[in-house]
Amino acid sequence: MARPIDFYFDFSSPYSYLGAQLIEPLAARHGRSVTWRPVLLGAIFKVSGMAPLTEIPLKGDYSRVDFARSARFHGLPYRHPEPFPISTVNTARAMLWWLAEAPARAPDFARGALQAFFVENRPINDPAEIGRLTAELGGDAPALLAALQAPALKERLRAAVDEAVARGVFGAPFFFVDDEPFWGQDRLPQIARWLAEGPY
Amino acid sequence: MARPIDFYFDFSSPYSYLGAQLIEPLAARHGRSVTWRPVLLGAIFKVSGMAPLTEIPLKGDYSRVDFARSARFHGLPYRHPEPFPISTVNTARAMLWWLAEAPARAPDFARGALQAFFVENRPINDPAEIGRLTAELGGDAPALLAALQAPALKERLRAAVDEAVARGVFGAPFFFVDDEPFWGQDRLPQIARWLAEGPY
Repeated sequence: MARPIDFYFDFSSPYSYLGAQLIEPLAARHGRSVTWRPVLLGAIFKVSGMAPLTEIPLKGDYSRVDFARSARFHGLPYRHPEPFPISTVNTARAMLWWLAEAPARAPDFARGALQAFFVENRPINDPAEIGRLTAELGGDAPALLAALQAPALKERLRAAVDEAVARGVFGAPFFFVDDEPFWGQDRLPQIARWLAEGPY
Repeated sequence: MARPIDFYFDFSSPYSYLGAQLIEPLAARHGRSVTWRPVLLGAIFKVSGMAPLTEIPLKGDYSRVDFARSARFHGLPYRHPEPFPISTVNTARAMLWWLAEAPARAPDFARGALQAFFVENRPINDPAEIGRLTAELGGDAPALLAALQAPALKERLRAAVDEAVARGVFGAPFFFVDDEPFWGQDRLPQIARWLAEGPY
């Protein structure tokens, strides 16, 4: 049985939104599943010394052009949210709850939240919004909102970020295919070749 | 007549080496020419606050994997040079000399120097190496080496870097197609679509 693709993503990352839309169909074409791994780029940037794209002189202006054009290139809707970036600590914890409580629907929650932010510009870190997204998917919103207050999910997210950094994750989306690292939605063609032909 | 593609590149940039191999055939398929514009990432990073890829924690280790794999993906040879990165101020000035003195052969000089560094690991910023590459292409090596000592080329390179920054160039390779900015060799698929279909 071929190993799942590890997909590290951040809920405030435009390229993660694109990756979340594109990785499952690509994996499925090659008989692979996807393991969804939410992380917090803000915490990871403390290790790497990097800054959010839009805050870097020159690169920030370009990135806004590239977010929208890359979405159009893939035929996906995109409306740049303001404020941006935002904290997504609650959203990431909620994703861990979904992964534990109803793993089969967790990818739907992730895609739903990413679309809510990057298409509808909704405040996806607000518990009320997280409750709405959860209820729409038939999840137990009161249970999730209670879990967001408890220490267990906080600990689990901290451990998830530490694990990602230990594995070398410095940005998002970040993929591992058979332990080979691929950073960025623009590496999907390289991933496709790896899935089709194996290591190169 | 369709406008040339502006191709900004740095002689110490692995992705510029890949871009230099790939952009001319792509442009030619769509009836476009390429304007080669050498820059110095070191000078540009002073504006953006960015650092060389290989010096960033976590990202540095990944970048070495990605340089080599991206080359294999495109079927191009690659041997990571050490030391890396290097100053390429003489190489970039030499390219400006070629562009002024023998523009039709200037792309050959650029590709030759990039290959000398990223495949043969030669010290391409050394005047002796620049003279050798120039002579191999039938250029007037003594004239070039004399010009490297004079202030004109230094001024011209400084102006070229300033112009690039004013246009928003923060990395390399950087392309403008009909004034639309594209950063990175991994944007070549997006450029291909733009060339085939126009703005999207």
